Amino acid sequence: MRDFTFYNPARIEFGKNKEENIGQYIKDYGVKSVLIVYGSDRIKKDGLFDRVAASLKDQGISFESIGGVISNPVVSLVREAIEIVKKNNLQGILAVGGGSVLDSAKAVAAGCRYDGDVWDFFVGKAEVKEAAGVFSIMTLAATGSEMNPYGVVTNTETKQKYPIGSPLLFPKVSVINPDLMASVTPSYLAYSAVDIFSHCLDLYFTASYLPGYTAALIENILETVMRTTNILMKNPDDYDARGEFAWAATMALNGNTFVGVEGNTFDTHMIEHAMGALYNVPHGAGLAVVLPAWMKDIKDQNPDRFKTFASKLFGESDIDAGISGLTDWFRSIGAPVTFAEAGLSEDAVDPIAENAFGNAKLWAMDEMYPKERIAKILMKAVK
Amino acid sequence: MRDFTFYNPARIEFGKNKEENIGQYIKDYGVKSVLIVYGSDRIKKDGLFDRVAASLKDQGISFESIGGVISNPVVSLVREAIEIVKKNNLQGILAVGGGSVLDSAKAVAAGCRYDGDVWDFFVGKAEVKEAAGVFSIMTLAATGSEMNPYGVVTNTETKQKYPIGSPLLFPKVSVINPDLMASVTPSYLAYSAVDIFSHCLDLYFTASYLPGYTAALIENILETVMRTTNILMKNPDDYDARGEFAWAATMALNGNTFVGVEGNTFDTHMIEHAMGALYNVPHGAGLAVVLPAWMKDIKDQNPDRFKTFASKLFGESDIDAGISGLTDWFRSIGAPVTFAEAGLSEDAVDPIAENAFGNAKLWAMDEMYPKERIAKILMKAVK
Repeated sequence: MRDFTFYNPARIEFGKNKEENIGQYIKDYGVKSVLIVYGSDRIKKDGLFDRVAASLKDQGISFESIGGVISNPVVSLVREAIEIVKKNNLQGILAVGGGSVLDSAKAVAAGCRYDGDVWDFFVGKAEVKEAAGVFSIMTLAATGSEMNPYGVVTNTETKQKYPIGSPLLFPKVSVINPDLMASVTPSYLAYSAVDIFSHCLDLYFTASYLPGYTAALIENILETVMRTTNILMKNPDDYDARGEFAWAATMALNGNTFVGVEGNTFDTHMIEHAMGALYNVPHGAGLAVVLPAWMKDIKDQNPDRFKTFASKLFGESDIDAGISGLTDWFRSIGAPVTFAEAGLSEDAVDPIAENAFGNAKLWAMDEMYPKERIAKILMKAVK
Repeated sequence: MRDFTFYNPARIEFGKNKEENIGQYIKDYGVKSVLIVYGSDRIKKDGLFDRVAASLKDQGISFESIGGVISNPVVSLVREAIEIVKKNNLQGILAVGGGSVLDSAKAVAAGCRYDGDVWDFFVGKAEVKEAAGVFSIMTLAATGSEMNPYGVVTNTETKQKYPIGSPLLFPKVSVINPDLMASVTPSYLAYSAVDIFSHCLDLYFTASYLPGYTAALIENILETVMRTTNILMKNPDDYDARGEFAWAATMALNGNTFVGVEGNTFDTHMIEHAMGALYNVPHGAGLAVVLPAWMKDIKDQNPDRFKTFASKLFGESDIDAGISGLTDWFRSIGAPVTFAEAGLSEDAVDPIAENAFGNAKLWAMDEMYPKERIAKILMKAVK
């Protein structure tokens, strides 16, 4: 076991109708005004926005709101939101949506307590020293953002998709109500499953030391995601499957899988962020393309763990059969596993490799991942 | 998945020599004076006390200390400690020891901010409304007290072994350094393993609803405990095994195993607390006697889960073989599995059943556990 610090003060309120208590949860932390951040107008049409607004009013919490957050959320909208918070002196940020909405909300929470431009935090020019309290009501489970202090935002001018992180950005309270996720489309369910796989497998395959307990925890998360995704593809209203899927997403990136681990890196995310920045491919779709290709590239680095993966997840004894098993499963749930299936041509390989190498430099992974190696990995997905 | 709230703000500092930073960790929370609570004088002889004192002095944190906490810790010592805290206006409590020491420290933390007698919290006469900050350096892993808001203390006058609990009693920081646990005796390692099994199996076998993810998490904890205990019995200095064992103990009672679960009760602890209160049997030893007997009593209630247990933990297809597997394993690591092996005679059955029925009433389990049923279970362990 390698040294670690585990600290995660985010409070999860999981269950039916829990969003109707959001006013109380926010009041628990002494916050009296919030900016509601959301994505499409769906939450206005289906009544969620009104239920949230009613709960806030009940507790005397005033609010403003801003919608329009998109998948691969953009910093321009974050800047707009920061202006609203500053102008109205709002005390907290309430995200109602999926990972993109919550990631944007975290950036707003940091940016609204800072005099410079919020992008400074993403490029390492400034450190988060203060932040408004973040709250969330999740309508999509995938990124784990509800129980971690990270966010990822895209700058379309500079073509950078970069992360922000600070202990101050842990959500105070996140509501997970599986019923609110029942209307997620099959495509986005698939992308979410892939995102969770990627959070786990980046670590699982790259760690130079992985405790037996932590390895088995990751295998449990992956088995849960496969089992529940298969159920949900047939019956989207299965509450228990939806709930277990959501909790697996949370556990995949709330610190538990990092316990005692050494030497892990975030390889497929480093590469996929380039696809999202340049071509606005949905995050999970891009990862589905990158992950099997990357696994083929690194399989000799850690053959024992690849064998365990093949055996535990797909009942296969052979490394390549494990990779094929995952590729086939991705395809079976409707996730693209080639450039063509993701709507990209071979011409995209070079720009993606170039942009990803920029990420590699920022994440101190450029020695391991020169541009040529990234291009070679991407070529394995061009078919 | 049933509704749940997950909230656990305790910070874990895991790793080599981390106790030497305890002054800094305490300072992070603005605490400038502490009472050090500990057990035997071993920590003075082996230098741990001095290293802790040096770290506190380095950070300008003043301290008093009180030793003498025993297994099945007693409320009389807690009361003494409270007097020291009140007299010296100390701001925090630092436990250096195992679960008994930390449990005592939590009771002190609550009692020192209360005008009445600390036992009021245990018998439900008062609620914890304020508490001093609790910090810990663990020298034994078993109870999970380092990452939960509970403690158990014995009142030798009233012969009650009762729990205290409040979100205010989460440790702020707990240090887990496996090296500090290397000198734990084989007996106490065995008792600790049994305690962790009991924390898990009470829930695993009684839950009327147990999500697949949570079931697999529990199986992972149990497998980790068996694997690492077997290693440590041969090589007590195996750092990685000691570390994984400690983390399994933490995970067994920090809220993760309760996620989405319904209908679980704490049966073997309810019974064992009576043994500890009356005969001062070490907690884990008492549990080793109670657990297999209790499993025989309830096995028909949940046969599928008993079959999974037998198969996953012991490679057996049959329920009784699973129970025998566990009994044999307890015996193989030196834990007593009968009254005789625990130094008790059949005469003890009636008083234990009587006292345990008192616990059952306090825990609202008396309808399920009339005294006769408890006696019947205990008789299965009299051989």
